[in-house]
Amino acid sequence: MTKSYKYDIRVDWGDCDPAGIVFYPNFYGWMDRGFWLHFASQKLTLDTLRQRYQALGGPLVDTGASFLKAARPGDILNATSRIEEWGTKSFRMGYHFYKDETLIAKGFEVRVWGILQKNGSITTRPVPTEIKNLFL
Amino acid sequence: MTKSYKYDIRVDWGDCDPAGIVFYPNFYGWMDRGFWLHFASQKLTLDTLRQRYQALGGPLVDTGASFLKAARPGDILNATSRIEEWGTKSFRMGYHFYKDETLIAKGFEVRVWGILQKNGSITTRPVPTEIKNLFL
Amino acid sequence: MTKSYKYDIRVDWGDCDPAGIVFYPNFYGWMDRGFWLHFASQKLTLDTLRQRYQALGGPLVDTGASFLKAARPGDILNATSRIEEWGTKSFRMGYHFYKDETLIAKGFEVRVWGILQKNGSITTRPVPTEIKNLFL
Amino acid sequence: MTKSYKYDIRVDWGDCDPAGIVFYPNFYGWMDRGFWLHFASQKLTLDTLRQRYQALGGPLVDTGASFLKAARPGDILNATSRIEEWGTKSFRMGYHFYKDETLIAKGFEVRVWGILQKNGSITTRPVPTEIKNLFL
Repeated sequence: MTKSYKYDIRVDWGDCDPAGIVFYPNFYGWMDRGFWLHFASQKLTLDTLRQRYQALGGPLVDTGASFLKAARPGDILNATSRIEEWGTKSFRMGYHFYKDETLIAKGFEVRVWGILQKNGSITTRPVPTEIKNLFL
Repeated sequence: MTKSYKYDIRVDWGDCDPAGIVFYPNFYGWMDRGFWLHFASQKLTLDTLRQRYQALGGPLVDTGASFLKAARPGDILNATSRIEEWGTKSFRMGYHFYKDETLIAKGFEVRVWGILQKNGSITTRPVPTEIKNLFL
Repeated sequence: MTKSYKYDIRVDWGDCDPAGIVFYPNFYGWMDRGFWLHFASQKLTLDTLRQRYQALGGPLVDTGASFLKAARPGDILNATSRIEEWGTKSFRMGYHFYKDETLIAKGFEVRVWGILQKNGSITTRPVPTEIKNLFL
Repeated sequence: MTKSYKYDIRVDWGDCDPAGIVFYPNFYGWMDRGFWLHFASQKLTLDTLRQRYQALGGPLVDTGASFLKAARPGDILNATSRIEEWGTKSFRMGYHFYKDETLIAKGFEVRVWGILQKNGSITTRPVPTEIKNLFL
């Protein structure tokens, strides 16, 4: 298990639905945000991924999330992102969302290492070892 | 396995990300849309659920989705929603998204039968049999 | 004033906020949807705009919307889109949203004719006359 | 002119469209976020507004925004929110978005002081003087 990245989320009014709680697809949006923040924390920004690796940031193949407690407008959530597993061409990110120490949601994303080809299509490639080493 | 409900989705420009494909949390939004359309097709609209059952439409406990092919702005997706399993207080919805007969994504939602209590909190209750019977 | 384009919107649960009404930025999303649908109705799809004109669909410079009545989950809105004015390099789209004949919101977008340059930047150009003629 | 409130926005991948720039309705979402943050900075949280004033946070009647420069994934925007004018039952918020000292977008919201009535409908009332005084 690699080291985790921490980030905070403020739940906006517009993130919540008529039941007054977070509209659940937004948790997936916050997972995606965590992926980008986590990678950027290792200097793997969108520009670097594109220019050095022709990589698109990790197209998704599988995702999931469970919801334990409700979150409401104005709540501050403490989130963690972690690379749970490296495959050859894919990797699994794990996310946990806490509110005042209480776990309220958790989820995962399986992403592939997606390379933009000259014809505009996307193909998958083995994740470079130097990338994996950044997250040990 | 109960009968399925069909609905169409037009992929908007604003649903897509800088890779030119659907930003994946939107698929979950379309699953939620399918739930509401599916229930409304049996006259279980938001108003009916609230007034007759004090029900909130089914708070989510578990969700997941896999992505097989990309969808792009202007694509028309044909979706199906199906109640895959009735539990005592919960039920599992299954969704499939097709583009020209090709499956491009599939997912599920486990929802509970959530009742709004007088103090504003939400509790779970057994799903009424008359509700289950609507979807045989 | 050119002829108008009509389209329908179903207000989803996830489009609404804790007050139970549409979270207002979604009206702008529906205006953007109308722009694309309106242009596509004249065979100006994203692909055509890109391939034939290297056009990006009309980057926004100015926008506005007023809200007269609330819309709620499950509401069907009847929308109209209209090109209100052609400038040299820009054009103004007008939108009206009705619910059961009642105007509930209206708005506008001023867009420029944006061309993707070889270096990846975007510049503005005069709108081709053949484009303007499509909407007479 | 009252004092301004400052807040930062990180542009997420999911906030951007296939042109690689912010999908413009998101700026309105960030304006709404600014309204809530600005009011919360004066201890006017959603709970306080509801419990002390039966207020719904300010339903929107008119909005607008202009876009001067593009913003892209990973950009940090510095935003300001300001109450530009108090009417009797309404008020006008002004927003400015900067990236590295450059103004990239600006907008406004006219909101009414909306009160939730016992029958569930919303009415407008004069803005309490004690509220106005908080923002001098």
